[in-house]
Order: sequence, then C-alpha cells, then structure tokens
Amino acid sequence: MQVAIALFPRLTALDCIGPYEILQRIPSIDITFVGERRGEFRTENGMLGLTADATFDELPTPEIVLVPGGIGSREQMRGGPLVEWVRHAHRTTTFTTSVCTGSLILGAAGVLDGLTATTHWGALDTLATFGAKPITQRVVEHVAERVITAAGVSAGIDMAIRLLSLLFDDVAAQAAQVFCEYDPQPPFDAGHPSKVGADVMARLAEYRMARS
Amino acid sequence: MQVAIALFPRLTALDCIGPYEILQRIPSIDITFVGERRGEFRTENGMLGLTADATFDELPTPEIVLVPGGIGSREQMRGGPLVEWVRHAHRTTTFTTSVCTGSLILGAAGVLDGLTATTHWGALDTLATFGAKPITQRVVEHVAERVITAAGVSAGIDMAIRLLSLLFDDVAAQAAQVFCEYDPQPPFDAGHPSKVGADVMARLAEYRMARS
Repeated sequence: MQVAIALFPRLTALDCIGPYEILQRIPSIDITFVGERRGEFRTENGMLGLTADATFDELPTPEIVLVPGGIGSREQMRGGPLVEWVRHAHRTTTFTTSVCTGSLILGAAGVLDGLTATTHWGALDTLATFGAKPITQRVVEHVAERVITAAGVSAGIDMAIRLLSLLFDDVAAQAAQVFCEYDPQPPFDAGHPSKVGADVMARLAEYRMARS
Repeated sequence: MQVAIALFPRLTALDCIGPYEILQRIPSIDITFVGERRGEFRTENGMLGLTADATFDELPTPEIVLVPGGIGSREQMRGGPLVEWVRHAHRTTTFTTSVCTGSLILGAAGVLDGLTATTHWGALDTLATFGAKPITQRVVEHVAERVITAAGVSAGIDMAIRLLSLLFDDVAAQAAQVFCEYDPQPPFDAGHPSKVGADVMARLAEYRMARS
C-alpha cells in the first residue's frame, strides 16, 4: 500500500511525522515523501530539512494521500502543483487525508465540498471559504467520501491510528500504537484554547509575533 | 538558548520531531540538528531523510542535548562520536535529555550512572547494563543532575512540555501545547504492553519480524 506524504516550503514537521511514525509500523505500507521537486524542504522556521524522494508527477495515484499544514499552506492553498496533485490523486485514493492547515489545501482542491472537516483551531474560518463545513473535532472522517481531516499538529497521530483501523483492523492500529508507546500523559490539560487561560493565549500571541 | 538534537543512521523520526515541534514554539530557542557529519540521515526503514546542519564538533556545548532512539541506537551505544559528544557536552548542559532508546546512548556516555531512567518498554533490560536503574514511567527527571529521559517514541512530546516548564514557566509550556493542539484523544487505550491483549502483542511481533 502506497502512502504519499506531501512536503512544501514552511511546513509543520510534526503534522507529517506523527502519522508517518504510526503508519510505517505496518510492513505492507510503503511511505514516500513527495514534493513539487525532489530534495530538501524546510520547516516554517528553517530549522529542519526533510527530504522529498519523488515529485508529484512521479507518484500520481497513491492509495493514501496525506497533506500536512504549516504557515506555508497559506501559499499552497492559492493553487499550484500541490493542489492539482491532490485534485487528481483524490479520484483514485483509498483515503485522502490532512493534518492541521493541510485541510485548506484539500479544500482548495475541491475535496471538501459540502463536507464537515477540521483544521488547526486558528484556521477554522479560512477553511469555511473553501466550501467545507468546519467543526471543532479531533478527527473528522467521511468513509464513503474517502476523506479524513485532523485538527492541529499533534492530531495527526490520533488520525493515523484511526486510519489503520479503517485500512486493516483494530489489532493493527493498536500494535502500531503500543510500538510507539502512545500513552499520552501531557503535564497539563492545555491542548485547546477552550482549556487555557488568557495568560496562556497572551503568551502565545507574543511568541507568534516574535516568530513572524 | 541552543538546543542540539542528535541524528544518526536508522533513528526513529518522531523521537526527535515530537520535542522539536514543542520546543521550537519558543522564539528564544534555537534548534540545530547535529550529526557525525553534516547532511542527510535516514530513519530505520530508509523512508525519510532528515538533515543535520552541523557536526558534533561544531556544536560542542549546547544548553540542551536531546538524543532520540531507534534501531540505530544499538550501534551508537557501543561508543563513537555521538557517545563522546554527549559525554563532553553533558558537563555544561542545562539539561541532557533522551527519548526512547536514546537513553542507551546517554547511559553509554556515563550520564545515567546510579540514576533512575526510562526508555522504550522493549529496552528496559538493556538500559540496566549501563548503570542506570530502569523504571517504567513516561518521563523521569533529575533536576539537580540535569538529566531527563522519556519513554518510547511519542513520550518525547510530554517530556518537551515538562522541559519548557523547567526552563521557562508553566505558561510557556502551555502556550506551546495549545499551539500544537496537543489534546490527545487516541482511539484506543493501547499505549503500553500492560494495556493490550495477547493478540496485539502477537501482531506486533509479526510486524517487527517482517520489518527486520
């Protein structure tokens, strides 16, 4: 089974690496990182390079498409090779999936028309402009329509486990989970804006300003 | 603040990318991926390349050292440039940290002598051979000794949030967590061998055999 994970400039690394780590535990899954060109793509702050081993043209019909998000998705969603690749690949995929603002790219490709979908909590309004019905939910799946979207960054891990249940069975999904020791114990219950105080959101705004 | 994340052949990607994604949210943190040589390192199955931007020699005294695990850690723990770098860097770090079997490399560098520490659930016995006292715990911290070890693969995310509390404050840690929407909702409570049935462990053994 061929999984294609898209790379583009200024992506968020965990959006792809969370699902990659879960999915690669299944020996029959072959994962290829793909891009507009082969070679290295840098994350949003430039601190990490990830390698694309194939171009979109070289992998036109993968069974699973996974599109990550990141600040660079704002550029990608305007159209271009990534959006066109998703549009064409989606016709024959088993599942077309996204993490974080990767759903904006799925939306731009017309994959989310009329469907409920999710994205990073900071991008729900933008998602609505692409014909999707944004909802606040960790993973939104449409099995008949072969589309799954996940919320921000770390939500791709939960999504990938669910995807293994759909593609194989619950035993496969749990085997991948136990190998990755995904037994989360966050020190805080602070994973969503609805769960944190104004002090945390103010600090976040300060950090985002400093990074931009 | 300089964070150095070590790369080596056949590492586990999420071991480094989980903490990277949390830590990079803090603008005063500068993260460099380092290796025995500059350039690309491949994950255990060869499906992903990550770029090292500096050699160990070029970054001898980072404030934070983070060592990931993966099947390649079995080779690294026998000694060599990575172990020597950890041994020397640890003298002046603020914290020396590991995820998964990265703790075997910390152990080989003498960093864990007499300390409780953790690793992937499948490597606890090996960890004991390096003078550490292995315990089953998600994150094991020794603040006075400046050492933190995390359990398998995904545990690095929890560790990194805790590290931000220690380095900055709880507000910084929560700001990073909310940005990464780390509000885990795994479809199964199957993150540790103690939580799954024999069918799951049998499947895992089958998968590991097929991959090796």
